[in-house]
Order: sequence, then C-alpha cells, then structure tokens
Amino acid sequence: MNEINDRLALLRAAMTQQGIDATIVPSADAHQSEYVSDHWMVRAWISGFTGSAGTAVITQDHAGVFTDGRYFLQAETELANSDFVLQKYISREAHEEVTYLADTLPAGSTVAVDGRAFATSTLRAYEVIFKKKDITLSVDADLFSSVWTDRPPLLHKSIYEHDVTYAGIDRKEKIAQVRQAMEDAGANHHLITTLDDIGWLLNLRGSDVTFNPVFMSYVLVTPSTVQLYCDTSQVQGQLAPQLDRDGVVLAPYDQIESDLLALPKGAVIMMDPTTVNGRLSGLIACQTVERDMPTRMLKAIKNPTEQKHIRECMIQDGIALAKTFYWLEQALEIRTVSEVELSDKLAEMRSQQPHYVSESFDAIVGYKGNGAIIHYKPEASTCADIKAEGMLLVDSGGQYVNGTTDITRTFCLSEPTDQQRLHYTLVLKGMISLTKATFPVGSTGQQLDTFARMHLWDEGLNFAHGTGHGVGFFMNVHEPPQGFAPAGQRAKTRHRVGMYTSNEPGFYLEGHYGIRIENLMITQASAHDGFLEHETVTLYPLALDLIDETIMTTREKAWLNKYQHKCYSLIAPHLSKAEQEWFTQKCKPLN
Amino acid sequence: MNEINDRLALLRAAMTQQGIDATIVPSADAHQSEYVSDHWMVRAWISGFTGSAGTAVITQDHAGVFTDGRYFLQAETELANSDFVLQKYISREAHEEVTYLADTLPAGSTVAVDGRAFATSTLRAYEVIFKKKDITLSVDADLFSSVWTDRPPLLHKSIYEHDVTYAGIDRKEKIAQVRQAMEDAGANHHLITTLDDIGWLLNLRGSDVTFNPVFMSYVLVTPSTVQLYCDTSQVQGQLAPQLDRDGVVLAPYDQIESDLLALPKGAVIMMDPTTVNGRLSGLIACQTVERDMPTRMLKAIKNPTEQKHIRECMIQDGIALAKTFYWLEQALEIRTVSEVELSDKLAEMRSQQPHYVSESFDAIVGYKGNGAIIHYKPEASTCADIKAEGMLLVDSGGQYVNGTTDITRTFCLSEPTDQQRLHYTLVLKGMISLTKATFPVGSTGQQLDTFARMHLWDEGLNFAHGTGHGVGFFMNVHEPPQGFAPAGQRAKTRHRVGMYTSNEPGFYLEGHYGIRIENLMITQASAHDGFLEHETVTLYPLALDLIDETIMTTREKAWLNKYQHKCYSLIAPHLSKAEQEWFTQKCKPLN
Repeated sequence: MNEINDRLALLRAAMTQQGIDATIVPSADAHQSEYVSDHWMVRAWISGFTGSAGTAVITQDHAGVFTDGRYFLQAETELANSDFVLQKYISREAHEEVTYLADTLPAGSTVAVDGRAFATSTLRAYEVIFKKKDITLSVDADLFSSVWTDRPPLLHKSIYEHDVTYAGIDRKEKIAQVRQAMEDAGANHHLITTLDDIGWLLNLRGSDVTFNPVFMSYVLVTPSTVQLYCDTSQVQGQLAPQLDRDGVVLAPYDQIESDLLALPKGAVIMMDPTTVNGRLSGLIACQTVERDMPTRMLKAIKNPTEQKHIRECMIQDGIALAKTFYWLEQALEIRTVSEVELSDKLAEMRSQQPHYVSESFDAIVGYKGNGAIIHYKPEASTCADIKAEGMLLVDSGGQYVNGTTDITRTFCLSEPTDQQRLHYTLVLKGMISLTKATFPVGSTGQQLDTFARMHLWDEGLNFAHGTGHGVGFFMNVHEPPQGFAPAGQRAKTRHRVGMYTSNEPGFYLEGHYGIRIENLMITQASAHDGFLEHETVTLYPLALDLIDETIMTTREKAWLNKYQHKCYSLIAPHLSKAEQEWFTQKCKPLN
Repeated sequence: MNEINDRLALLRAAMTQQGIDATIVPSADAHQSEYVSDHWMVRAWISGFTGSAGTAVITQDHAGVFTDGRYFLQAETELANSDFVLQKYISREAHEEVTYLADTLPAGSTVAVDGRAFATSTLRAYEVIFKKKDITLSVDADLFSSVWTDRPPLLHKSIYEHDVTYAGIDRKEKIAQVRQAMEDAGANHHLITTLDDIGWLLNLRGSDVTFNPVFMSYVLVTPSTVQLYCDTSQVQGQLAPQLDRDGVVLAPYDQIESDLLALPKGAVIMMDPTTVNGRLSGLIACQTVERDMPTRMLKAIKNPTEQKHIRECMIQDGIALAKTFYWLEQALEIRTVSEVELSDKLAEMRSQQPHYVSESFDAIVGYKGNGAIIHYKPEASTCADIKAEGMLLVDSGGQYVNGTTDITRTFCLSEPTDQQRLHYTLVLKGMISLTKATFPVGSTGQQLDTFARMHLWDEGLNFAHGTGHGVGFFMNVHEPPQGFAPAGQRAKTRHRVGMYTSNEPGFYLEGHYGIRIENLMITQASAHDGFLEHETVTLYPLALDLIDETIMTTREKAWLNKYQHKCYSLIAPHLSKAEQEWFTQKCKPLN
C-alpha cells in the first residue's frame, strides 16, 4: 500500500466510526479564497491530486477525484498509484460530484462534509439533490483531525495598516457606507467572510495567502460596532489603539462561531450565501437578509486617489519590465534562459521598485508550445530553455503598496512567420477595439467581450478564456464582480466608472505558440453623455515586428503610435543609457 | 357618470357580491398571444385605455391602469374622463400592479383574477408577493360575464392545411419529434397552448388573430394520440379525414378543461409554465415536468424547404415594395400622400403577389418626426401628409403561404443634410457589421447585438429597442426565442443554423426623424468549422443618397454593392419598363 491508500484507509475508518457513508473534499478554505493555504489543501493531501481545481468523493468502496479538462492529464498521472480514480467533469455547474453520490448511495445514507469549505449556496444546491434520494447531508463533519495528524496549522502573519494616503478613503467612511447598505436592506448585522472585502473595508493588509495581501479574518458589522475576528496577537504597535479609536473591536479568529450563535433575538443579519461558508450560516438562528456584499461593488470602483496611485505604480512596473526584457535579449545573445529564470528575474526587477511587496500571481512564462497552455506555470525541473528564436508569452504582475499590476506581452525572438504576424495582429486589433470602445452606461461584460473577439471570429478563430477580470488595488489580482466574458458573473455585471479591469484577448496554437496581449484599464465617463470609455493604464510597448500593418486601420495605428509614445515618455527617463537606446526601438511608431 | 364609470360600478357590485376585494385585468388571451381578439380586450373595455400594453387594478376605492413609458401620454388622455388613474410602471419585471395591491389591501383580503389571461409562472410570482401579506389569490374569477353583457364572442374561422410542399416536414414527423422530447423528459402527456406552436406542429393555419395565421386551439399529445381542441366545425372538406389518418383527434375547444381534470393517475404531463395559463395548469392534478416547449426550438429552425420558399417569397415582397415606392415617388411629384394611404398601397401591392394572405403587422409609416416614435401607427384621422421633402421610415411585412416578411427602409425625399447622412450611415454600418459577422456556435443574441450598435456608440448614439427578433414561416412575425438584444430572452438564446431573424438597428431624433434599416437573415454554417454566419434574404436596395461614403470601409462598400446588384438582378425582371428604369438608379453601386 502506498501513502495515499494508507490515508484513505484511515479516513474510511473514521467515517465508519462516525456513521458516515460518504464525504466530499474540495480544495477550498473557510473564506472562499482563490488561493488556499497548506492547511486547507485537504483534497490534495487525501488524493494526491495537486491541481488547483478538483473535488474528491469518497465512500467505503469508491474514491474518485472530479476535475475538468485542464487537469485530466495531470490527474491521471498523480492518481495512477493509488485507489483514487479520475472522474471527468462534464459541466461544473451540474454538481456532478453530488449527482454521482445521489445515484450510487442507497436511500438513508449520510454524507458528511466540512461545511467551512463550501459556500452556503453550494450546500443548498447539494441538499436539494440529496433530499430527492433521501440522503442526509451533515455539514459539521470533523473527519480529518484524527486522520491528518501533521496537518499544517493556519498561519497568521502580521496585520498592517494600508495607509489612507494610498487607500483614499479612511475606514470610518467605508464602514459608514456599509452601514448605509445595511440600513437599506433592513439589517442590523452584516457578516463579511471574504478576505479581500475585509482588507478593503478596514484598510488593513496581511500576508496569510500567497500573492494576496490579506489576513485570515471575519468581520461582523452592527450599527455601532465592528468586530474584527483575527489573530489579535498580529495587530501590533500603534495599530491596535488606532483601530480601537476607529470603532473596530478585536476578537479571536474562532470566536466568530460563538458570537454568531449568541446573536440577540431581534438581530437581522445581512449576508451573501455565495461567500459565507455553510458552517457559519448554519450557526445563524436570527432573521437573515441575503444580499450581494456591498463591499464588492464599493471596492470594485477605484476612487480618484487609488486611480492616481495606479497610474504611478504602472510606471514602476513598466520600468521593471523594460529592465527584464532588456536583460533577456542581452542574455539570449550568449546563452539560453530557462522559463523559471525569466520568471525569477521579473520578480527581482520588480522588487527593486519602490512600494513593491510581492508578485501578484505565479508568472506564466510560456516559450513556444508552452505559451499555448493557458494555465501554464513553469517548474524548475521541467521548464523549457528560451533561445533567441520563436514565440514567447509572458504574463506577470506585482503587488505594490500603491497598486496591483497584471500584464501580458508576447514576443517573437526571431523573424516572425506570416501566420504568427496574422495571429498577433488579430489579437491586437481585438485588444485595441475593446480599449477604444465607447459604450452606454449599463453595458455588461458580455456585450463588451464581443469587441475583443470579432476580428479573430472573422477568421474562424477564438480563445477559450474570458477577455478580462476585475483587479484589486494592492489586493487580489482577480477581483469580482466585473470583467469581459461570454458567460458567468463577469459577463452579467454592468461596467461602471472607476472599475479596474484587464483586457487580455489571446490566441493559442496548440503545440506551437500562445499569443496574449493584456493591458489594465480604468472605466471613465465619456465626453458623450450617458456613455463610458476605457483609460489604459498599463505601460509597455507592443511587439512591432509581430504586427501586420496591412490589416490595421488608420484609427488602430493612430492609437498604437500614441500608446508607444506614451510608454516611451514615461518609462525611458528611468532607464540606463543602454536600456534607453534599446527601448527607443521598442517604442517606435508604425509608419 | 360616463360609460367607463358605469362599467366600473357594475364590476364593483359583482366583486362585492362574490366577496372579492380586488381584481387585476390584463390585456391577454388564454394562449399568451401577442395580438388578442376583441373578446379578450377586457382591460380596454373596463378602463377605456386602448394601448397594447397595460394592466388595470381595481378595488372598491381605487381604479388604476399600469402601463409603461411608451403609453403615458395616450393613457392620460384616454383615462381623463373616468375614475381610472394612470399608474406608471418603473420596471415591468417587478409586478408593480401586484406590489401596489399587496401594499394597500388589508391582510385577509381576496384578489381574484381570470386565470386564463395569465401565464402560470406569472401567477406563481403574484402568489409569492400576496402570501407575505396574507392575501388570497383566486384564479377562477368570473367577474365579467354578468358585467360585460355584449362581450364579443371568440371568433373561430376556417382552419386549413399548410401544405407540406411549403412546410417541408409533415405533421407526423413533427409529432414524432415532440414525442421524442416527451420521452427524454420522462413525460407521457404534453400540453401545448400557444397558437403558433400548434399551427406549426400540425401544419395548419387559420385567421382567428389579426396578422397571425393561427386559430384558437389547444393540443394534448400522448405517445399514441394527438388531441386538437378547436371549433371542430371549422375543420372542413378533406382536412378532417386527413387529420384522422395522421392520428390527430378533434375535440371541442372547451373540452380541454375536463380532459385535463380527467388525466389518469399515472399521467406525467410536460408543460411550460411561461406559456400555459394559470387556469389550465390549476386543473392538472397529475405529476408535471416543466420544460421549455420543444416546438419552440424546432419551429425556430427553418428546414431547407422553408428556407427555399423564404428566398422565393422575398422576391415577391421586393417586387411589391419596388412598385409601391415607384408609385410613391410619382405621386409626390404632383400631390401629397398620407401615411395611411402609403400603408394601404403597400398592402395592395403585396396582395397582387402570388401566395399573399395578409400583412404581417400594422405598417409603421413614419414621416419626419413620426418616424422617431418607435411604435407609431398612422391613423387616418390624424396621420401626416408626406411631401417630396424630408425623411420617411417605412416598416412593413406580409404573410404569404410561402413565407413571412418584415422589412424597414428609410428614405430622404429631398437632398439629405450631413447629419441625416451621418446617422443613416452609422445605422447602416451596424446593420452590415451584424450581417457580415462570423461568430462561434453557441453565441448569444447579446454577444451579437454589439455588432449592430458599436458604430453608433462610437458617436455617443444608441437606439432604445432590440436589434432583432425571430420570424415565423407563414406564422407570427415575432417568433421566440432568438433575436439580438442587450437583455431578455432574445439576449440569452444561442443562435443556431436555420434560425430566421431580423437585423434592424435604428436611430431616432425626437421630433425630427427616425432611421431604421431592417433585413431578415437566416443563420448558416460558416466555412470555418465551429462558426456561424448570416445569409441575408430580404431584397430591397438601400438609400444611396443617405450614405456618407467617407466613413464606409472598403469591405462595407463591397458588401453593399453586391447586395444592390443582387436586388436588381432578382427584382428588376418583374417590373415594368418605367419601373425598371427607376429601379436601376436605386440599385446603383457606390463608387
């Protein structure tokens, strides 16, 4: 027996002991975070499948991992030596992990899960399916404490102030905005469990989650108090008395549970069932009012101070990119550079910029065919060596105290082929069309998504990801709710002035190369009353040698030339003489 | 007291007698038809408000009519002399007619409606709102039989075969397709109440509803029988035995109610709660399976035979238009022509074409400022006189046995201004962009709608209606589910090969002129695998004098010139010498 099967045997013994017929193990934390800490990587620990999306389903005679097409190969490899089998998702929305159990378990069975790792709305959908088959769903299972004995503890690192000179609005005003939303909803309590909403609301940051400057916490707002549940020992120095003066009361992280249980009889609590986990919502006995979190929209709209900082931050990020890509070209003249080395160099160059905190996600450095793997992450042991030849896609970003960046550029390291130029130019035309679009107030991400795709569609081409996502301000690089996409929340959300969103169409030729061009934009009012437009804030020139000018319109060329000039004038003064000379060539206009 | 107040007094007496505190009176029939017959114009009869959209709400001390912004002026005028007051809809989806009652009636009240005039899903939404306020909703009210003593009877006119040489698929095959959908849904009964679905399924037509070639009926399908509930005396000649041979059994129209009551215990009935009325669904005691009607999608996709006939029908329609507009220009040289006269002339010219049955809707002939009123219908007593000067919008269509048409053209009857040319050209560019779009299988009406608007948006302009609707085949000119629109069912529906849809962007300058250009298109497979494109079938040239060539791309001009040539080559051979000479000028290419 191998290690995974040993773990499985222990788990099944615990299930038998507790009278549980099946369990569902996702890869999620108690805050519905995009990145989870080691403590919460339960599915990876029990099954051996380490992909970022997947759910294990375990009964006494079956152990499977459901995942989607992106991970089939990886899952098959990782599950090969254990009793776990791969179960392929056809549609994630259908909750196939649950319909599988409903179809195979006998009536009267009990399925138990750790309710903290599921959104309330997800568990409700599960219950509907199980109820039809007379299966009981228990959300308070504690299966792993006796099984996973060396489970990493939840790490709580230092919590620090995000100064209002950056945030633009102080926490007291933000709290007042949330209280107004509570009053509008007829609620006197509001539970916030998503870490980025808490960080934004209180102008606090931490480093408990990789790439995201957040800290493990819950918040309960009432008309007179704000309770912040966290590791209180991590609130140090002047911060504790300052929070106290601002009406924020500290409480231990785990105390949220007993406080929810003890809510007074007249309490009316506003909560969002898509973010509050099922264990917490299960503790609430008072009246609830279900609403989208007000912080979500307040946070999505960047205030003028934030916008000013973002523009400055983009200069720093552009300088780091220019220095990195100058270095790369120099290095490639004499040797190869591995994808991981380039990724590390990006982080190194960014780290030399003021206000730098960390990268904002694992850089995607995809050379040739690797660029066509949309979620590619180079690993030191297996990554490709970049030579002065062929296509290279680089998608990376930084967390700075004065902003969050996310940029993709695609290069050809030798003379491009006609096909490469055609594909690059079609992607570029889509990026420019979305950039230059004027659109009515109320337009959705689905309406605008078309701008980015239409030139590719014209040639029977497309790309299999959304065109853009919301971005935080020194906060998560993927920030709901808005974006540009053919479906989902990003498709439905209406764009508003101040939203900060990526514009990143692409094209992928499997086994050969990937092309993606990504700029960040802030939505602004148009000179036309009732209309909106985009301000591009990312600063780095496009790849002139990959542009087929014959299919560019006069208007597209004019935009491009102006953009190239802007990149030069803002970045070049901060470069060395040699870098400047090289950068001048990169920022040339088209003829 | 006037007539309306007399009716109101009678109704309130009946309400008192039956213990009813309030009633809601919509403008709808038992089949959720777009056009309703005189028998069903209950709201107009009781309130005096004759607009096509609006709902009356009557209690003992209040009488109001809810309607939307299109009808505020008309409603204020028509309600001025009675006790009815105008109540303005803010959002139709919010059921404000019901929230008004829920907010004003005391707990324990009874609201009664004629359940036949409401979709099941609508009544369900009503019930949720009323239940919170402890108000009872009764759906079997018979308030008008004693009050509206001279109510027009339901007219049943002749029912006739729509020959399979036109329909392309015989009724037995269509019924088999529906039975397959029933089997897939686990149902052994299927109730169809929408008249166009019934007409399509059985290849039958009638003339019980203005402009729509349908007849009053219900259908109940089982694995072995098809019951057609209608005025059986209207099934004459060879049709009755033919239906019998095809397994279609006739039953009286009203017998549907007792048959639904008598469904056997093991019956599982498939129905669509958005189309089946609340009275009928209330009679069903057996298990129900709620599904979109399978006929809706089957009917939306035109088969190759239907497509062939549509192309031929478009030649007839184009000939009628050419003859009408030639006549108009001749007439305007010596006199004025009223909007109604032009509307009548269109019908007259169409009626001279083979296969003609009727117009497909009230023609919108809008001269100058009238063209900017989106739902304008000229009335003989008030309509404008057209002179050889200024802008004219003409939106009309015909019902032919071999197809249904719907076309809008906008003309300038004198030298256009630069502004008129700009506005026309922006609309035209949108129309051409949507026409020429290549788009992936699975694209929705919202994704495609952007093509039609982007050029207007660029100038801060827009239009306040959807860009297109599905069209029937010798059937209703507005046919769900697909279309092009920023919101609603037409926005959500994915386009498929064979769908027949209008492409009609516009621009409206209030008080001055309206511009709309409408062609019908059939969705076809693209040469690019996995992509779709549009085939334009409407045949009538665009207004060359209204085009600003300087803002047209080479590609747009090429499309236009090819289209002008196609119109000429297919229409001109059927015109007189004088008409031909005139038509040659209309079909000229751009330089």
